[in-house]
Amino acid sequence: MKLICTQANFRKAVFNTERVTGKQNTLPILKNIMLETEKGQLKFSATNLEIGVITKIGAKIEKKGKITIPARLLSDFVNNLPNEDKVLLETKNQTLNITSGNYNAQIKGLDAGDFPIIPKLKSNYLFSLAAQKFKEAISRILFCVAINENRPEFSGVNVNFLEDRIILAATDSFRLAEISLKFNRDDISDSYREFITKENSVIVPYNTFSELARAIGNKTKEINVAIEENQIFFEIDGVQVVSRLINGKYPDYKQIIPQKFSTRAVLAREDFLRAVKISNVFADSKSGEINFKLDSKKSSLIIQAQSHESGENKTKLKADIVGPSQEIVLNSRYIIDGANIISSFNIAILVNNESSPVGLKAINDKSGEILEDYVYIVMPIKK
Amino acid sequence: MKLICTQANFRKAVFNTERVTGKQNTLPILKNIMLETEKGQLKFSATNLEIGVITKIGAKIEKKGKITIPARLLSDFVNNLPNEDKVLLETKNQTLNITSGNYNAQIKGLDAGDFPIIPKLKSNYLFSLAAQKFKEAISRILFCVAINENRPEFSGVNVNFLEDRIILAATDSFRLAEISLKFNRDDISDSYREFITKENSVIVPYNTFSELARAIGNKTKEINVAIEENQIFFEIDGVQVVSRLINGKYPDYKQIIPQKFSTRAVLAREDFLRAVKISNVFADSKSGEINFKLDSKKSSLIIQAQSHESGENKTKLKADIVGPSQEIVLNSRYIIDGANIISSFNIAILVNNESSPVGLKAINDKSGEILEDYVYIVMPIKK
Repeated sequence: MKLICTQANFRKAVFNTERVTGKQNTLPILKNIMLETEKGQLKFSATNLEIGVITKIGAKIEKKGKITIPARLLSDFVNNLPNEDKVLLETKNQTLNITSGNYNAQIKGLDAGDFPIIPKLKSNYLFSLAAQKFKEAISRILFCVAINENRPEFSGVNVNFLEDRIILAATDSFRLAEISLKFNRDDISDSYREFITKENSVIVPYNTFSELARAIGNKTKEINVAIEENQIFFEIDGVQVVSRLINGKYPDYKQIIPQKFSTRAVLAREDFLRAVKISNVFADSKSGEINFKLDSKKSSLIIQAQSHESGENKTKLKADIVGPSQEIVLNSRYIIDGANIISSFNIAILVNNESSPVGLKAINDKSGEILEDYVYIVMPIKK
Repeated sequence: MKLICTQANFRKAVFNTERVTGKQNTLPILKNIMLETEKGQLKFSATNLEIGVITKIGAKIEKKGKITIPARLLSDFVNNLPNEDKVLLETKNQTLNITSGNYNAQIKGLDAGDFPIIPKLKSNYLFSLAAQKFKEAISRILFCVAINENRPEFSGVNVNFLEDRIILAATDSFRLAEISLKFNRDDISDSYREFITKENSVIVPYNTFSELARAIGNKTKEINVAIEENQIFFEIDGVQVVSRLINGKYPDYKQIIPQKFSTRAVLAREDFLRAVKISNVFADSKSGEINFKLDSKKSSLIIQAQSHESGENKTKLKADIVGPSQEIVLNSRYIIDGANIISSFNIAILVNNESSPVGLKAINDKSGEILEDYVYIVMPIKK
């Protein structure tokens, strides 16, 4: 292999691929990035056997070839280089000679023949979504995924395909988040319409969505999505991410989301969040138990925590309460997560009784109506 | 104890004291802050038995008293409070009842009688220094201190007292930094003149200077310094820091600082730093060995590294070299530290021969002269 490319492109390609390289020592080649000439371009590939990333850049190729190079070393070298126009690459045996201006390195590589194959998309992308909208949806769901869960289907996000939208859901059985993303008409292909007649949901691993959110970064383009042979493919701005899907059936979570709530308290989200954070300081560090008292006569929400070691705490907040008074015990950390992820000025706390799930919802700041595109519910702690 | 104070002052006092509380579980009371009424003020004290911090705030005291409260809990509570004017404190048995607006907590404390005594300054402060100047000097010295060193005198900074200035020095025996701070005439007391007739240097623990730098923060006032009975006292903006000194005799480091250098290379500091950082990627991770070749005929500095695992690297930089050509092996990390701490545009690399200490010095960007107030030398690696 012998070629010239721009330093800016080279740097970007290393940045985009290095993150998914393997972190363990069991298979050293997974720590490497594969560089390979392909149809007048230089292709970068990395994989940790679960997720693979591929990106290509333009290059003036003098001699075809391929090699795999330790990602960390390549990235440390490239990121410290001063800005120069060009990078010259040349392989000799299993060594990559890389020169940019006065800076030269010879990096020892491993045989490209030993590099695992990353699945290729055979057909077309099914649909596309605005990247930032997708990234935001991921961030509002992902924190509910149960990591280290014995049931593998819990360790991913359920993606449900409908005619006009997809629904993402995640739960760790203590709380659940669900978000709905509508398609623009132009953003779905005929293949998608055909696809949903056969398949209506898949489970995407936590790490895949987490990596995808990073790959999206602040890119404003559309992201393309395809599903093929138990793999999910994403493409944004020339970077392809491919991941295995999780086998198994996602639990039928719909049944535990209350259809309606008897009591609704509305108050400023920041005040609510602050009071819960303070109570969290005093809550038992294991159970995180805090007590919520919704008093509809006094229009007040009282938040209390108590622990044997530290003492106790009580905050009284004014709230707009409709429905019967309620008292319920919840895990402070789940409530903090929920109140953090909601961005409206006011927040609604929705309760049925002391043993039913509690809902936290955003409020349309102008109309005062509850926003229904995002669902976040928390199971209460039974006393 | 029963009193009212402003929330802003209370918060600031907790912030200033909580950092030095003990981190270990051996003596739980060290994790507490002592609150104590004293002459119409509320005094906050914290200590980890090495360093103590005391600060006072104004308070409207209804009933005198004292109590010790877990610092972390108090700080978490106070920092989450919304801005309110006042904080009300009242103790009942060993519990502190604290109220600010609608927020209330009852925090369990420990008996103030068990709190360790923090040494008090009996005489006067000896001298004062501009706080930011002092903080900067600390930052240019502290990274050379040997932590976990068997010889306790190496685990601190040597402070040498002279008529017109103090000299701070630190070394881990592989590299050494020394900085000189001149007094303004008004900033030294008669007691200081008397003091230096008896004592000419002390060793201040690493943690003390590190904590002091944090206590200074971006305060622009003067810092007062006193030494008494093997303790050093600092005072800035109402916060008092007191620390034990390290017993022992600091090594006579002056003798290893070369009086002059035969070869001097001058080049842009950023280019130099970048090249060393790149070589560091390829250097042996234990020894950090990189090779410097100062070629006075070709006016070039060649920086090279090589390791069995990763490969090798070579960078050629233009440099203004005076004196005979040199070749020397140095630890890349020590050179990176030194080039990072120097802030001038150009840097001077000063060499005598392959087995003598190398100097890194700042250059006066206008005159091109070497600046002598800060000394940084590195021992070479013998081949």
